[in-house]
Amino acid sequence: MSIYKHIQQSAYDANMQLPELGLVLFTFGNASAADRSLGVFAIKPSGVPYKELSPDKMVIVDFDGQTVEGKLRPSSDTKTHAVLYKHWEKIGGIVHTHSSYATGWAQAQRDIPIYGTTHADHTTADIPCAPPMSDEMIRGDYEYETGFQIMNYLTVKGLSYEEIEMILIGNHAPFTWGKTAEKAVYNSAVVEELAKLAYLTEQIRVDAPRLPDSLIKKHYKRKHGIDSYYGQ
Amino acid sequence: MSIYKHIQQSAYDANMQLPELGLVLFTFGNASAADRSLGVFAIKPSGVPYKELSPDKMVIVDFDGQTVEGKLRPSSDTKTHAVLYKHWEKIGGIVHTHSSYATGWAQAQRDIPIYGTTHADHTTADIPCAPPMSDEMIRGDYEYETGFQIMNYLTVKGLSYEEIEMILIGNHAPFTWGKTAEKAVYNSAVVEELAKLAYLTEQIRVDAPRLPDSLIKKHYKRKHGIDSYYGQ
Amino acid sequence: MSIYKHIQQSAYDANMQLPELGLVLFTFGNASAADRSLGVFAIKPSGVPYKELSPDKMVIVDFDGQTVEGKLRPSSDTKTHAVLYKHWEKIGGIVHTHSSYATGWAQAQRDIPIYGTTHADHTTADIPCAPPMSDEMIRGDYEYETGFQIMNYLTVKGLSYEEIEMILIGNHAPFTWGKTAEKAVYNSAVVEELAKLAYLTEQIRVDAPRLPDSLIKKHYKRKHGIDSYYGQ
Amino acid sequence: MSIYKHIQQSAYDANMQLPELGLVLFTFGNASAADRSLGVFAIKPSGVPYKELSPDKMVIVDFDGQTVEGKLRPSSDTKTHAVLYKHWEKIGGIVHTHSSYATGWAQAQRDIPIYGTTHADHTTADIPCAPPMSDEMIRGDYEYETGFQIMNYLTVKGLSYEEIEMILIGNHAPFTWGKTAEKAVYNSAVVEELAKLAYLTEQIRVDAPRLPDSLIKKHYKRKHGIDSYYGQ
Repeated sequence: MSIYKHIQQSAYDANMQLPELGLVLFTFGNASAADRSLGVFAIKPSGVPYKELSPDKMVIVDFDGQTVEGKLRPSSDTKTHAVLYKHWEKIGGIVHTHSSYATGWAQAQRDIPIYGTTHADHTTADIPCAPPMSDEMIRGDYEYETGFQIMNYLTVKGLSYEEIEMILIGNHAPFTWGKTAEKAVYNSAVVEELAKLAYLTEQIRVDAPRLPDSLIKKHYKRKHGIDSYYGQ
Repeated sequence: MSIYKHIQQSAYDANMQLPELGLVLFTFGNASAADRSLGVFAIKPSGVPYKELSPDKMVIVDFDGQTVEGKLRPSSDTKTHAVLYKHWEKIGGIVHTHSSYATGWAQAQRDIPIYGTTHADHTTADIPCAPPMSDEMIRGDYEYETGFQIMNYLTVKGLSYEEIEMILIGNHAPFTWGKTAEKAVYNSAVVEELAKLAYLTEQIRVDAPRLPDSLIKKHYKRKHGIDSYYGQ
Repeated sequence: MSIYKHIQQSAYDANMQLPELGLVLFTFGNASAADRSLGVFAIKPSGVPYKELSPDKMVIVDFDGQTVEGKLRPSSDTKTHAVLYKHWEKIGGIVHTHSSYATGWAQAQRDIPIYGTTHADHTTADIPCAPPMSDEMIRGDYEYETGFQIMNYLTVKGLSYEEIEMILIGNHAPFTWGKTAEKAVYNSAVVEELAKLAYLTEQIRVDAPRLPDSLIKKHYKRKHGIDSYYGQ
Repeated sequence: MSIYKHIQQSAYDANMQLPELGLVLFTFGNASAADRSLGVFAIKPSGVPYKELSPDKMVIVDFDGQTVEGKLRPSSDTKTHAVLYKHWEKIGGIVHTHSSYATGWAQAQRDIPIYGTTHADHTTADIPCAPPMSDEMIRGDYEYETGFQIMNYLTVKGLSYEEIEMILIGNHAPFTWGKTAEKAVYNSAVVEELAKLAYLTEQIRVDAPRLPDSLIKKHYKRKHGIDSYYGQ
């Protein structure tokens, strides 16, 4: 029995949740789960319909993007996952989707403004939208560079990957991460909902005001940090 | 057997209806059911996924917000529920959601205008949107103050809690109430639908006219008061 | 056994289809089925949840709006149905919903323009939106007057009830009819879809052109009249 | 047993997927599957509800639009399918729907701009919207002319049917094709999603920029051609 079975199961479960949550059409997405002590992650094989997936089909890849175990070719976005796992030591799961509203904001190349407490419950910042990559980066090792584009833009925004667990890639779509693959899936549903709420807000009022700092901090601290009092 | 079993069951049923009606994602909502003779209400525990809920997990809280029975921490919005139960003697249920369209109006900080008879079937007033709280109120006992913000804004609008059973909190989301938890759930679905209809109306016609008073009164009186002839 | 069982079954089936097709929330709609030889129709009782309906609960009413058989109070819109059955000799079913997009157009008090062949497959005219009733009509026998408002507006538009089987009531919502209750339900889904398509069309292009007459006639005649070649 | 059973099954499966994918309401669509060696295709009968379809009801038609086998009348759009099969030697399936967002763009008579990588994963061009036909073409053999309208507009745009497998007909709705009926169904879901994403993008940012050429080529080549590395 494979020593990778636990992360294959996690990656499988995470991938299967994506169509259930309405976040992917056909194969337009992928989820991975890492075991940091083994230095590898399990990821969806490329282009295989969700109905044909099973835990043992998840491909095992190391943090340099090399396949360690598995007969199928891993997701075409595998190198992006590898770069993030390599540089962000505390994450255990990554998800990429093309969910409709979040992709709408990514295609519009706009950060998602923080308009309400639903947003502040998850992060104190606007959801950043990294600019599309330069032609040089695109011609290079594209998926590898996508990982760096994500990391660089967080730095530009003064955010750490622990403060915010979601980003949009301009012209492309969202990536999310978290301590587990399950949390990364949760974050994918959250970014889609925040994108929808912000869209509706601007349609209802063109000059909708950003959430005041006091309320941002209050809602975030209800759920996060030492004084939090949300959850069990 | 707990003497609170009946309200635990009501609160459980109400909470379970919220995802079924498409009104909550994950744990973004809560419902409670009160027994006024016992001076307590049952409310969803904080941050517990809907799949893991059961009637006996509903926490029993008094109208000052103190837990009376239950091992789990009650919803982070518990004090808002408590304040409303304490001051509004005829309500038996409260629901809070972040449903998409209603939250869009709340984030836009706009009352929902009464554009049609669907709205007038439920109330004669625009759905009020209470302004976001002052920094002072936010720094204070936030959830407690949210309850007062709701009550105060109804007073400003000259409305009683019996005339209108739904409100938006600016930058936040809707709260609804009713004689029972089931009615409060119904009102949550209604405010979401009214928010969607008003959104579509404004998109289809920028200067859509408000419903004339004659039609407002006619539709409301068909369903409410001594001359009503709707229902059995 | 009731001699009205066949229309009770038809009315029941029609009413049950409405939530299945996503056209009604809770009890926001009603369907009826007539037997013209008996001079009566079966209609949903007022305010009874769809889950509690059964064929024998459908109330039997004559074309003057008087209850003939049934213990429950008929739909509050019963008189509107009665007026239409009385004056339009060839219809056998009527449906009223508050479906979202169609209600959006009704609240905006706009006819739905004919923008495409989906629309022309069903009628050659814009879907008319009757103006809201005068205060006098509202204060009078409201539901009875609603029926006349529908008939009068078709006359204003130069349309017969056989040419077009759907209308919007300004500030209110759509009514549809047909030779059978099943056809009226079909028309309710059609008007909702046409309302959605026209909404999207105007959002995508502010000055979207109306369908040219040649295409309107072509598509309509494919499906209707002696030269039609659609269906079996 | 019919020698056409395999294409009847393919056509049946393809037609049944359309309502499952939310792409058709009632009978507003049709799918066909061809056997090029036999010179025929199987297509949905006209106006038959999806619930009543079965593989043996699919009508067998040759590439001139003449029925070869089958008791039912074929889809009213049969001649459009026939023309495309006759002139495009490598296609094995065609689908026509009136899916909401794609139809919205068709009614607006606009090409769908390429705003993101989801689009570039499938084609490097804007999704073309053929202009509505001239009155002369409409009065002529309408469905036959629709096929030529599709072919002519691809020529105008400098595109081959192998480079792009989807088109909108102005004022009407989308047509898609592919090597198999299953691929044509896939393309119908794709054009609907691209239409939705482009709609949201323009709503979120009026002057949203088109995808740069470098990114268009990169994403397309990931999935198509000799250097592709997507899928198994």
